[in-house]
Amino acid sequence: MPTFQTVRGMRDLIGEEAKAFTYIIGKARATAMLYGYKEAITPVVEPLELLSAKSGEEIRQRMFIFKDLGERQVALRPEFTASIARLVTTALKNEPKPLRLFSVGSVYRYDEPQRGRYREFWQSNFELMGSAKPEADAEIVLLTNSLMEELGLQGYAFKIGDIGIIRGILSQDNVDEKTQNAVLQRMDKKEYDKALELVESQKSRGMLEGLIEIKGKDWQDSVEQIKSYVASYERAKEAAENLGEVLKLITQGASLSITVEPAFARGLEYYTGMIFEVYIPQLEIALGGGGRYDRLIETFGGDPTPAVGVAHGIDRIALALQTQKTSFAAKTEKRVVVLAITDALKSEALKVAQQLRAAGIPVEFEVMGRKMGKALEDADKRKVDYAVIVGERELKEGKVVVKNLANRTQSEVQISALTQKLQS
Amino acid sequence: MPTFQTVRGMRDLIGEEAKAFTYIIGKARATAMLYGYKEAITPVVEPLELLSAKSGEEIRQRMFIFKDLGERQVALRPEFTASIARLVTTALKNEPKPLRLFSVGSVYRYDEPQRGRYREFWQSNFELMGSAKPEADAEIVLLTNSLMEELGLQGYAFKIGDIGIIRGILSQDNVDEKTQNAVLQRMDKKEYDKALELVESQKSRGMLEGLIEIKGKDWQDSVEQIKSYVASYERAKEAAENLGEVLKLITQGASLSITVEPAFARGLEYYTGMIFEVYIPQLEIALGGGGRYDRLIETFGGDPTPAVGVAHGIDRIALALQTQKTSFAAKTEKRVVVLAITDALKSEALKVAQQLRAAGIPVEFEVMGRKMGKALEDADKRKVDYAVIVGERELKEGKVVVKNLANRTQSEVQISALTQKLQS
Repeated sequence: MPTFQTVRGMRDLIGEEAKAFTYIIGKARATAMLYGYKEAITPVVEPLELLSAKSGEEIRQRMFIFKDLGERQVALRPEFTASIARLVTTALKNEPKPLRLFSVGSVYRYDEPQRGRYREFWQSNFELMGSAKPEADAEIVLLTNSLMEELGLQGYAFKIGDIGIIRGILSQDNVDEKTQNAVLQRMDKKEYDKALELVESQKSRGMLEGLIEIKGKDWQDSVEQIKSYVASYERAKEAAENLGEVLKLITQGASLSITVEPAFARGLEYYTGMIFEVYIPQLEIALGGGGRYDRLIETFGGDPTPAVGVAHGIDRIALALQTQKTSFAAKTEKRVVVLAITDALKSEALKVAQQLRAAGIPVEFEVMGRKMGKALEDADKRKVDYAVIVGERELKEGKVVVKNLANRTQSEVQISALTQKLQS
Repeated sequence: MPTFQTVRGMRDLIGEEAKAFTYIIGKARATAMLYGYKEAITPVVEPLELLSAKSGEEIRQRMFIFKDLGERQVALRPEFTASIARLVTTALKNEPKPLRLFSVGSVYRYDEPQRGRYREFWQSNFELMGSAKPEADAEIVLLTNSLMEELGLQGYAFKIGDIGIIRGILSQDNVDEKTQNAVLQRMDKKEYDKALELVESQKSRGMLEGLIEIKGKDWQDSVEQIKSYVASYERAKEAAENLGEVLKLITQGASLSITVEPAFARGLEYYTGMIFEVYIPQLEIALGGGGRYDRLIETFGGDPTPAVGVAHGIDRIALALQTQKTSFAAKTEKRVVVLAITDALKSEALKVAQQLRAAGIPVEFEVMGRKMGKALEDADKRKVDYAVIVGERELKEGKVVVKNLANRTQSEVQISALTQKLQS
């Protein structure tokens, strides 16, 4: 029989890799708690209709779609926002605003697998519903900053823009929304030439060309530059002013590294205001990104509800931690094996093991029935710290032998004092 | 536009319900750590071939099966064991035994939804590979006991048997394996009459009838009873002796409530030895169950590897916690809102919020731009503990106003002392 593999584009995470994921998820959950976000666990399988209501064509074509045994058209969620929108328009319809919701779990897209990109990947997702104020935008960026900081990532930086600047220019020059979406999609991929080709209005094209050049690390400077550049475009100017307010709040709330990019676009068509991404210098892919989408809830049949949100890529953050060699071990646990010298002492040895576990000490109990020499050799190989050996002679005196496998010393220890000995 | 719902049989968990799940998952992960189990995160989507290799026909008919965009036949995992077997026969093939592996996540079965049963449900799964010894069986039961205890469940009890007893009887009376499987499936559903009808051997039928009557809370007594009852069936007697050894180790390792049931069967066809389930008195469904399946790894193309494992139903445990009104709150966090009296003070208020968060205090920042009265009314409704109000006059003296919403008192507090004040 052939051995089995994972489905193409999916992967197993074992041991240290799984630890990195649970570490990141734990930090994301702690961040949610700190900022007052309630957790929502939603299904991986959702109605196709729901997932299609929002996603752009691009994502729709890459979804895992199928029929369940009841002939329902369903799909694996490609992200969380549609599921959260469902909650906000149904179960949480009458909850007072603002609504702060956090989710974490696996999502699915049929992309070409490459470094840091899988067909099953993990996200932590934050949505703040009900506020159109710049402090809401600022909060989403600030909580992302808190998460990056808590994770111990170094030198991460934010890229921030406002989709209202480009849309404001194009709208005023009568470029229709469909063309705007196409332009933004190309700009997201940094295919600026292709994007500009789509713009018939020569005036708009010129404006966009100039906008692409503006990019700065001094946010106040950049915002002023944008404001004067788009001065004759009412809505673009408003967007730039709004971006300035958001940036003011963010930089008051934390000290972070920001590049303002007015021509920065994000793939999803539904953004309506501030957009942002966060990077580390060593990786070209964003560790997270989000922005404002004030028309989202309407799309799902709800009342008009301003909204801003962010998704963090857990697989990518794990890659970032690995790249920066960030240590994320919890307190270093001592590893202990417990073994009996003879079969007749197994029960006694098990009692000792249970006593240690009750005190919070991780124990690997000898279940292979190996002779002591063999078991110790194996423990040594696996870098176990201590072996607790239960023998008849010592047991009669209420003692066991504790072998320190690192420095090869051993001593007899009263069972009643064993927990303390191993914790010291 | 109509509002959307979840796919039939699937559900959302919001707020407290999500907290119950993360609490249970946290306890399962802590148990894994205590017993030396490494975590493995495996994909939700697996090759159909892999998932079919092990599952009985019954589960196979209830899987979510589909083709991905690359025309691969895939399915959503109905449980973890097949994925773990894949790991053991591939990536972990050369790891020294024993292998202890832990997984937790969602699994999928197209069952008729009912109380405590969903089409997407969650399991924590422990597998111990490589040992045929009774201490391995005992460990799986003991770690389940530790988990139940840690969760704070009351009055839970184990039902334990050994599939080798029934199989030993039927084999000796020449009942073929296919019929044995059919008999066991019916016995699992407690359809004893239907099970007995399938047995042509009158002698076996008589034996099974008697076996069904044996059921006892004194495990030593029960084991002796079974041993003498099956004395003329060599392999059945061996199984009973093995069960006795396992029970001896379990009861030495912990004090737990056990019913021995030699005619107890579990649905899955692949069990080869000890089997068990754990219940609370208030619920008819098992909170977890498992046993020994020594032929599992061979089925997946690996070398013969004795194995024992258990899966715990997280949805059911959540129901059990709710039924027993178990409190699972972590330390009760003080809830704090921070708000500015005027728009001009938003930045200052945000700074205060960030200071509190940095000290680990959860803060909901006012993002709705509401007047103070309205914001405080809302905070009151949502049972927030403190409101921190940033006003111009107090700020000039480096102070803010702290309002205790429970007892309606308020005081001015130096910003530098605010963290301490709210933590006390």
